[in-house]
Amino acid sequence: MNPLDNVIVVLVGTLYSGNVGSVCRAMANMGLSRLTLVAPRILDGWEEGRRLAVHATDILDARREVATLDEALADCAAVVGTTARGGLYRATVQPPRVLAPEILRLAAQAPVAIVFGREDQGLHNDEIARCTHLIRIPVDPRYQSLNLSQALLIVAYELYAATGTYVSPVEEAVSLATQATKHALMAKWRQAMLDIGFMDEQKADHMMQGFQRIFSRGVRTDPDASIMLGAAHQMSWAGRRARGNQS
Amino acid sequence: MNPLDNVIVVLVGTLYSGNVGSVCRAMANMGLSRLTLVAPRILDGWEEGRRLAVHATDILDARREVATLDEALADCAAVVGTTARGGLYRATVQPPRVLAPEILRLAAQAPVAIVFGREDQGLHNDEIARCTHLIRIPVDPRYQSLNLSQALLIVAYELYAATGTYVSPVEEAVSLATQATKHALMAKWRQAMLDIGFMDEQKADHMMQGFQRIFSRGVRTDPDASIMLGAAHQMSWAGRRARGNQS
Repeated sequence: MNPLDNVIVVLVGTLYSGNVGSVCRAMANMGLSRLTLVAPRILDGWEEGRRLAVHATDILDARREVATLDEALADCAAVVGTTARGGLYRATVQPPRVLAPEILRLAAQAPVAIVFGREDQGLHNDEIARCTHLIRIPVDPRYQSLNLSQALLIVAYELYAATGTYVSPVEEAVSLATQATKHALMAKWRQAMLDIGFMDEQKADHMMQGFQRIFSRGVRTDPDASIMLGAAHQMSWAGRRARGNQS
Repeated sequence: MNPLDNVIVVLVGTLYSGNVGSVCRAMANMGLSRLTLVAPRILDGWEEGRRLAVHATDILDARREVATLDEALADCAAVVGTTARGGLYRATVQPPRVLAPEILRLAAQAPVAIVFGREDQGLHNDEIARCTHLIRIPVDPRYQSLNLSQALLIVAYELYAATGTYVSPVEEAVSLATQATKHALMAKWRQAMLDIGFMDEQKADHMMQGFQRIFSRGVRTDPDASIMLGAAHQMSWAGRRARGNQS
């Protein structure tokens, strides 16, 4: 299959329909067709969006709209976040040219999401933590602000360009873990960390962002998820038993 | 000198000021600053142009306006035309990535013009004939129509990327975990998995290969290693305690 058909453009909390329309046009230019809007906050109606989509209104019309990022990512095997900022959770970003071949390789097997944040705030930390890969587009440090559709265009252009030289790798025998599987793992892990007393409920959300960041990169296949699930199960057993011993 | 300061963006017969404004913004993103308009036919006043230039209005204000393409090109040592069409004069086009290094090499010595045609008609044959180089941007053949500012963005992005000034932010923020740190983590993790009874010594080497695979991808930075070390420490405590309870 064409890996570009497995690339899903995910826009989070978009404000202006014109940006969605321009994104549709750029997607069509670069051979992408699947668009998901997460909790769009369109302020200006859809007229401008339709106008700027030009002949790519089929992508606009076929868009999926969901309430949460998790819904958008549920069947994805990889999640590529885009960010313009630095910071702790953004320390391992790569330029789109470097990541494009890997994105295509993954998309040859399972859906891959490319996630773009709000026009005003980008992606929040808890959204960044869900990403298995992070992209930052190289821009002049004196003028870093890229428009939403321009950022999409450059990432999509790199993906399209990478298809030209792309040689399909030997298919891996194992299946990639879906986001739903990873979600179940994180829930189990959270409980295990509580059970062994590594964190309490107050700090759990903060600590889990760290684990989320690590696991989103590390846990790639179903066997990866299985081994971590099994370990978490055993941790919970040991933790509950230890506490019983303590009291 | 910075070769990008010698790159002149030349727009021929532009109709919409919004496109000029978007071009200014994209130029600023990619370190370009010199704009020349040839016989502009702006139909809509400059309000939209100023709005879409956002903070790049300095480029808009400093633009040069001339009546003919020859005036715009007079002091240029090379003229790079952009075209979406094929045809006799367009047989030797190259993708922007291939041409970018040569454009920078030339621009280190003398001004180089990058010429973009009209929104509706592109460049005419007599204008194409003035070009020393021709660029065509790779796009999906099913949807080739690129907006003016999008075409400029991709060409400017390739020029900026070719300067090699972009430093991957991986090196900026947090320190990457060394192999020694990862080694220590794996030893601690192995002990934790034994302590909680997830595996016994006989199966430990085999199981650790799975963890090694997951952690080698997931644990990238020192903060990543710290959080996993802390968790492993607590697992060992819980595991030993649980076993004490069991016996």
